[in-house]
Amino acid sequence: MEKQTEKKKLPVRIIPIGGVEEIGRNMTVVEYGEDIIVIDAGVQFPEEETPGIDFIIPNTAYLEKNKHRIRGLIISHGHLDHVGAVPYLIDKLGFPIIYTTKLSKAIVLKRQAEFPYLPSLKIEEINSATVLNFGQMKIRFFDIAHTIPDAIGTIIETPHGNVIYPGDFKVELGDDGKPMDIEQFIELGKENNLLLMLESTKAETPGFSVPEKVAHRNLEKIIVESKGRVIIGMFSSLIERVIEMVKIAEKYDKKVILDGYSLKANLEIAKELGYFKPKKDAIIPAEKINDYPVSRIMIIGTGSQGEENATLMRMASRKHKNIKIQQGDTVILSSSVIPGNERSVQNLKDNLSRQGAKIIHYGVAGVHASGHGCQEDLKLMMRMIKPRYFMPVHGYYFMLKTNADLAESIGIPKENIVVPINNGAIIEATEESLITLKESVPANYVMVDGLGVGDVKEVVLRDRQMLSQDGIFVMITVIDTQTGKVKNSPDIISRGFIYLKESQDLLKQTRMLIRKVVEEAVGKMHPINVDYVKENLREKVGKFLFQKTHRRPMVLPVIIEV
Amino acid sequence: MEKQTEKKKLPVRIIPIGGVEEIGRNMTVVEYGEDIIVIDAGVQFPEEETPGIDFIIPNTAYLEKNKHRIRGLIISHGHLDHVGAVPYLIDKLGFPIIYTTKLSKAIVLKRQAEFPYLPSLKIEEINSATVLNFGQMKIRFFDIAHTIPDAIGTIIETPHGNVIYPGDFKVELGDDGKPMDIEQFIELGKENNLLLMLESTKAETPGFSVPEKVAHRNLEKIIVESKGRVIIGMFSSLIERVIEMVKIAEKYDKKVILDGYSLKANLEIAKELGYFKPKKDAIIPAEKINDYPVSRIMIIGTGSQGEENATLMRMASRKHKNIKIQQGDTVILSSSVIPGNERSVQNLKDNLSRQGAKIIHYGVAGVHASGHGCQEDLKLMMRMIKPRYFMPVHGYYFMLKTNADLAESIGIPKENIVVPINNGAIIEATEESLITLKESVPANYVMVDGLGVGDVKEVVLRDRQMLSQDGIFVMITVIDTQTGKVKNSPDIISRGFIYLKESQDLLKQTRMLIRKVVEEAVGKMHPINVDYVKENLREKVGKFLFQKTHRRPMVLPVIIEV
Repeated sequence: MEKQTEKKKLPVRIIPIGGVEEIGRNMTVVEYGEDIIVIDAGVQFPEEETPGIDFIIPNTAYLEKNKHRIRGLIISHGHLDHVGAVPYLIDKLGFPIIYTTKLSKAIVLKRQAEFPYLPSLKIEEINSATVLNFGQMKIRFFDIAHTIPDAIGTIIETPHGNVIYPGDFKVELGDDGKPMDIEQFIELGKENNLLLMLESTKAETPGFSVPEKVAHRNLEKIIVESKGRVIIGMFSSLIERVIEMVKIAEKYDKKVILDGYSLKANLEIAKELGYFKPKKDAIIPAEKINDYPVSRIMIIGTGSQGEENATLMRMASRKHKNIKIQQGDTVILSSSVIPGNERSVQNLKDNLSRQGAKIIHYGVAGVHASGHGCQEDLKLMMRMIKPRYFMPVHGYYFMLKTNADLAESIGIPKENIVVPINNGAIIEATEESLITLKESVPANYVMVDGLGVGDVKEVVLRDRQMLSQDGIFVMITVIDTQTGKVKNSPDIISRGFIYLKESQDLLKQTRMLIRKVVEEAVGKMHPINVDYVKENLREKVGKFLFQKTHRRPMVLPVIIEV
Repeated sequence: MEKQTEKKKLPVRIIPIGGVEEIGRNMTVVEYGEDIIVIDAGVQFPEEETPGIDFIIPNTAYLEKNKHRIRGLIISHGHLDHVGAVPYLIDKLGFPIIYTTKLSKAIVLKRQAEFPYLPSLKIEEINSATVLNFGQMKIRFFDIAHTIPDAIGTIIETPHGNVIYPGDFKVELGDDGKPMDIEQFIELGKENNLLLMLESTKAETPGFSVPEKVAHRNLEKIIVESKGRVIIGMFSSLIERVIEMVKIAEKYDKKVILDGYSLKANLEIAKELGYFKPKKDAIIPAEKINDYPVSRIMIIGTGSQGEENATLMRMASRKHKNIKIQQGDTVILSSSVIPGNERSVQNLKDNLSRQGAKIIHYGVAGVHASGHGCQEDLKLMMRMIKPRYFMPVHGYYFMLKTNADLAESIGIPKENIVVPINNGAIIEATEESLITLKESVPANYVMVDGLGVGDVKEVVLRDRQMLSQDGIFVMITVIDTQTGKVKNSPDIISRGFIYLKESQDLLKQTRMLIRKVVEEAVGKMHPINVDYVKENLREKVGKFLFQKTHRRPMVLPVIIEV
């Protein structure tokens, strides 16, 4: 607080803690003097390199050390890549007040309820009219279009000008094909805007993002033309689209079955808050599916990514209690394929197709619209807001770089654009300069695995990866310390290496080798140097197994002295 | 042989042994009476569900039982998904004669050389003029356009008409935008064509496949416009494109560095056979890269899929001995992204971009052309060949179904189209009927892992998958059979579960639990029922660990009695 009274203009510091080397794990810190504002606390979904992990969350080491300076956590909208990490890190941040909109608040609270042992959250509801003051920073908000209601952008007024963070967004086009609701941005463009952060998720895609309502109309057309049941698979997070589909069902006198835990939960929240007002009897339970002709049935479910236990796959593999795919069904996959899910989506399509369903997916029909701005959305936003500096966020480095190139292409000088080189980069901005400091704050992976947060380290992941390749080979040898001889036959435990039942010969040879190696290593040694014996075993048995199989299981010797 | 003299027309049997539930693992059997012809013997690359596996190959159980009936193995072209399994299964087929073209022969022999312990192959070189006679089947061939020279299609004349297998193909367009070399197919269309098999790899893509020469011209344009070094990453199998790139380099007086083992090996073969005739000094070794100005350097390398140890990634991660990415480099990724490789390609692009390279990939410029026919290619082929029956092959079920829909769309009656329901399906065709038998031949996965072919079973894979999720927890307990007490502290070996160094407390509690469980289970038992004690341990320790961590490692108890 003292520093602020010095009247010297400190730089504004912006630290993308997560979200600039990946899709997800979004968290951005904005600070001026002693005051810190944190925006978003998202999860990243696990990847091939992080087997067995539930989530990756932002590394809050820097914030933990500075928690007394945190004035609030702003949540831009209710999707997991922006809000999912709250239960795992809110305590480490010292339980700051969470500022968010009505629907996002309900989603945060719903999620928090799954962690009953945590203290309750402090949440203040905000809307586009809210103004907050934190030291020399004044915070305002603006409504923004995304695929979930109540998404909000943040303006942080600082002594150097505004720092603007719209979060995930797209420019929605009206029926006339012209951008809607842009007056607020044109107005905002008249202010002193220091720095604009824009997401880079779709920075590589030319043109404008397909308007959500175009997807709605395409879906409506398919629904009207389908003679059998219509089954729509989509993300449970696309609340606006689900609501619209129910409206279409009502229009054509169809009954809707909602299926999938998260989908139902989200709709329940939307209903409670008044965003979703289905007519009485519009929605029927799955058990009543046979009470109506097929032409009146619409099913909305989860699992468009081919997830094992979600609605669509259960239907396709005939594991769903009430609904089985049948000839005449039209299945619409109203989503894009998330990188990494190609194989499971293929599997889903194959299974549905084998059962006789007609499949319509976004690759062949406009039945999905992304919630993220493409190149023209991004450029339009930059042109309207006219920031002094531009900083791409949310995406892999190449996406950020592509976004930066877009900024340059519309005339923002190269030196006024900063691409964060990695998570944890510290950017200092003043009216005169924009620099990235040499030092960074900690940003390495913090992994959530079961109850553990951050306890799974590189070594555990490396072991999991090794185990998944060639398995493990544990050999337990009992040595009589009196004689230096191996007692009984060594025990061998192996998993994921070879099919033991058909490898009796190899096991027999290995047992003989173990005995030989141990007894040679022990020799007349007294007392036995167990580490030396183990090292000998590891090396020689490992070599032997490789020679016999060309596989390299993890070889672990255990020596028991009796 | 007897049956053939009965003068009764037997049905032609077609069995897709592999390739109709996946991309790869292609192998198709055509048989008439006692005579069997096998076409292609490809590998499938491993997937998420097959960790640690090198390849998946066709299941030859049916052919092994009938190897005396095999008259030959025809190889359509030299790509691994059509030829890669030869070394692993040729012995099981009884070393039939392999019939293939000049380049494919060289590739087969080159690959076989990596297996020096195998007997030498019997190969007969064929070309489009070759005619073979096997019992009542007469075999002819035709040239076909793909991305590797010397691709060949097969016509099998049977008493019911021709069975036609073009293999991988595309319709190349000439400079006038019209299809080239189609007279042969129009001529073929005048014959009695019983059944046409067409690949389904690109059956979901509308239009014609982009002509290879369009990719060449786009690449040339980028090469001419680049001021710095040009680095082109592509599959080593795209031999035609590599040859064309070297010609372009010669045209603009650039020096070419070829990098990557398989790329160089393929070019060496092409050179020996006269398909590749570079000018003297056109190709320079990588060590000489600094002898020329950057504007004269073109590098062609492997690794466009982000493979860890291939050229591009080694350059990007500064591990390449001679070549480091620098500002001003233009990197062209002249390939599409194979599903499953999205993450590693992203990583590659991020790394290259961070080092200052300009990246051009197929998503934004036409720098890649697929070798597979799209919808118009497929339809054109069907229309020209005018088969009585159509059978889509090569692809996942949904791709096959889409291909079948194309056939229906151009007027092939639905009942004359057969989509193989799975690998191993037996299709019987006569002039009168087309049926799929109820029984199938064995077609489940045969996996190659190191030296083992087919020895990795489901249980091994399941173990690898489990191990990769939550690791393993082995506990070794020594029981004094006299007293029934646990001697010393139980040994615990754990990998991939928790970070042991930071979990001393948990380990201590677990050791106490093990002792308690064992001693309670043993009680006054004499002799000790080891299985009972183990089962108790597995259950109670597993439950304890889950309760403490919410993870489920593989829990393996070992009991040693002394």
